[in-house]
Amino acid sequence: MTHPPTPAGLPLAGTRIVEVSSFVAVPLAGMTLGQLGAEVTRVDPIGGAADYRRWPLTEDGESIYWASLNKGKRSLAANFRDPEAQALIADLIVDAGVLVTNAAGRDWLDFDVLAARRPDLIHVQLLGRADGGGAVDYTVNAATGFPLATGPVGISGPVNHLLPAWDVAAGLYTALAVASAVRRREATGAGARVVLPLEDVALATVGNLGYLGEAQFGGPDRERLGTSVYGTYGTDVVTSDGVRFMLAAMTTRHFNDLAALTGTTEAIKSLECALGVDFGDEGTRFRHRETLGGLFRSWFVEHTAEEAHAALAASSVLFERYRTFRELAVDPLVTDNPMFSVVDQPRIGAHLAPGLPMSIDGRHTAPQPAPANGDDTADVLAERLGIDTDRLADLTARGVIRTATSDPHNRPVASTDQKDPNA
Amino acid sequence: MTHPPTPAGLPLAGTRIVEVSSFVAVPLAGMTLGQLGAEVTRVDPIGGAADYRRWPLTEDGESIYWASLNKGKRSLAANFRDPEAQALIADLIVDAGVLVTNAAGRDWLDFDVLAARRPDLIHVQLLGRADGGGAVDYTVNAATGFPLATGPVGISGPVNHLLPAWDVAAGLYTALAVASAVRRREATGAGARVVLPLEDVALATVGNLGYLGEAQFGGPDRERLGTSVYGTYGTDVVTSDGVRFMLAAMTTRHFNDLAALTGTTEAIKSLECALGVDFGDEGTRFRHRETLGGLFRSWFVEHTAEEAHAALAASSVLFERYRTFRELAVDPLVTDNPMFSVVDQPRIGAHLAPGLPMSIDGRHTAPQPAPANGDDTADVLAERLGIDTDRLADLTARGVIRTATSDPHNRPVASTDQKDPNA
Repeated sequence: MTHPPTPAGLPLAGTRIVEVSSFVAVPLAGMTLGQLGAEVTRVDPIGGAADYRRWPLTEDGESIYWASLNKGKRSLAANFRDPEAQALIADLIVDAGVLVTNAAGRDWLDFDVLAARRPDLIHVQLLGRADGGGAVDYTVNAATGFPLATGPVGISGPVNHLLPAWDVAAGLYTALAVASAVRRREATGAGARVVLPLEDVALATVGNLGYLGEAQFGGPDRERLGTSVYGTYGTDVVTSDGVRFMLAAMTTRHFNDLAALTGTTEAIKSLECALGVDFGDEGTRFRHRETLGGLFRSWFVEHTAEEAHAALAASSVLFERYRTFRELAVDPLVTDNPMFSVVDQPRIGAHLAPGLPMSIDGRHTAPQPAPANGDDTADVLAERLGIDTDRLADLTARGVIRTATSDPHNRPVASTDQKDPNA
Repeated sequence: MTHPPTPAGLPLAGTRIVEVSSFVAVPLAGMTLGQLGAEVTRVDPIGGAADYRRWPLTEDGESIYWASLNKGKRSLAANFRDPEAQALIADLIVDAGVLVTNAAGRDWLDFDVLAARRPDLIHVQLLGRADGGGAVDYTVNAATGFPLATGPVGISGPVNHLLPAWDVAAGLYTALAVASAVRRREATGAGARVVLPLEDVALATVGNLGYLGEAQFGGPDRERLGTSVYGTYGTDVVTSDGVRFMLAAMTTRHFNDLAALTGTTEAIKSLECALGVDFGDEGTRFRHRETLGGLFRSWFVEHTAEEAHAALAASSVLFERYRTFRELAVDPLVTDNPMFSVVDQPRIGAHLAPGLPMSIDGRHTAPQPAPANGDDTADVLAERLGIDTDRLADLTARGVIRTATSDPHNRPVASTDQKDPNA
């Protein structure tokens, strides 16, 4: 079979990527491409981009958020306002052949400028909106329809998601654009210019999931369903000791098992007769979700979480216990999961962090620490552009770049060079 | 520059993929790979897999959901219980060289069986859980921590997302795995076995976004914040005519602009003095979000949506109006968006549907209709496996396959061959 023996065999091994980014989507894209084997260098203003101090922070003011989204990258720090730094960064991009960015308003990073120097450049730019306007997950989400259809039955006002789902999707589309374009370049020699608006990621998803089609064909606006699952049977239940589970019965087998374990098989049969319906149809289970939920819940409130778990685990019903972030962090789902391993993160500390959520050829690759701003400036410039020690010292002295050794404590300084975010 | 003149120049042109799937994630992966240029054949039981009748439905019982997630694919229908059909499907996979699937418990689709026939096979399997256990978006989500930290301030109980964000992310990871593995195969000749558990997609994301790190370093469990954005300034506001906007002020410039347009600059300066704080720090803006929100909201309740929109559009503040799905479907965001075009969907009707949410080399590719179950059975078997008309007729007569012409109305029949879903 096909089990490459070394990490050099990862699917994107040999690919070099320059990332000029901030916030969630493009950092996630770069990290993911790195986990697939690419060498990713994040290039930032001295002191870090607008996301370098983003909450949550450690007591020392280090961003746990930033470290989590930039694992395994190299970091180069330069004064983005200095034309000499801009030229060095452009040289690096031309050398690497791939740029992923959500930077806007930086002419020296434009596709036309860079592709004039390297016609097979792969240039993937995440925008807020297709017209270049600014947008972030929280604003894009408002337009999608989801906040007005999510949340407890009967409440009014929008329910925004906490999970920045559009950023995550946009980051994965960005990574996919790069991987696909690398494949095409290696096959045909062609570069690629890809423009990916965060807003379009959200709108495409609303369409792909059928919500826009439903509305166009005259469907009603979706009501809030609480924890019920639209069009099939799902709900949350609480046990006698106050533990909450989510249940999903997507097939007739699941549903019959749920009836059996709650001792409601006969009651449900009688109900089917009396109502003249067939709960073998998932739409029918959805329509009668309140009645069914009442039957099932009365079993759960009379049993402990342990009893409920044992009964559910012995059935085909899909289920999961609700957890808080703190509960999850110490749960076997994380602590016994081969996707997680301990990362000794400088400035923050050792902790369990995830690798890529897939095994490739039977293996997980372990997560690597995130760099500090400028950790790899000297190495990258020497390796990739052949810049010698004297010039590195001169560039550092003049503030064109920052290297790890130019700040012995390697503490970030306040950035004076931040642009508005897109996405 | 590099502008391939024909659709044959799409990044994954020349790649053939067989998809054996149901629900959201793998169908989205296949559709996305198709939009990038791959030829995708969805292989289903006669009558369709467990998702073929999923809500929302048209009045005629056709699934708008299914059509939306399977645009541009070919469809082959066969009796999955028949060894002869299984052998034909295996032949197709070996011919295509790529399988994406969330099928479980079908030995004849196993990696080892198929890779024994084609060592460079790319086999990407989405599971519910890494141990093979079943899970769907709605159950996985319960474990992540998000439902207990999402929603209005002060409510109790979980708030499940309506957007199946984990399915969407898993679908994009699946597509990324395929594109990366195709690149590696073309470079090295190696196939790939990729296993992607939906649960691990969610857990990796919780980790990548810093929530697990925060918890491990002793951070408190997240409180519900309503529409506020954690760690920076964002909130919703309502205008005098009852229109609701989401606002995000991620930078000091955004924040100062928001103060200026609401006429609160002086009030905020006084507040900074009185409290001894600096609203130039986004964490400080977050801590004082209620006070700041009070100041800003009093401007919005005295202005119409039109006035508010004009003032916001003239500023750097990021904003968006909340819309329902029905409002969005007729909004210029959709109707004037080059990503959308009219698809004349057989059995459902003409409607605006999205293409891939990125332009490649300056172009959007238009969405294509979804097939009906078995529409392409005869064509695919003839083209790829060289099966002649007589054998097609015989296979159809014996119920091994279903072709479009074998059912003149091309109406799906009830499936008798459905397995439990994973993801």
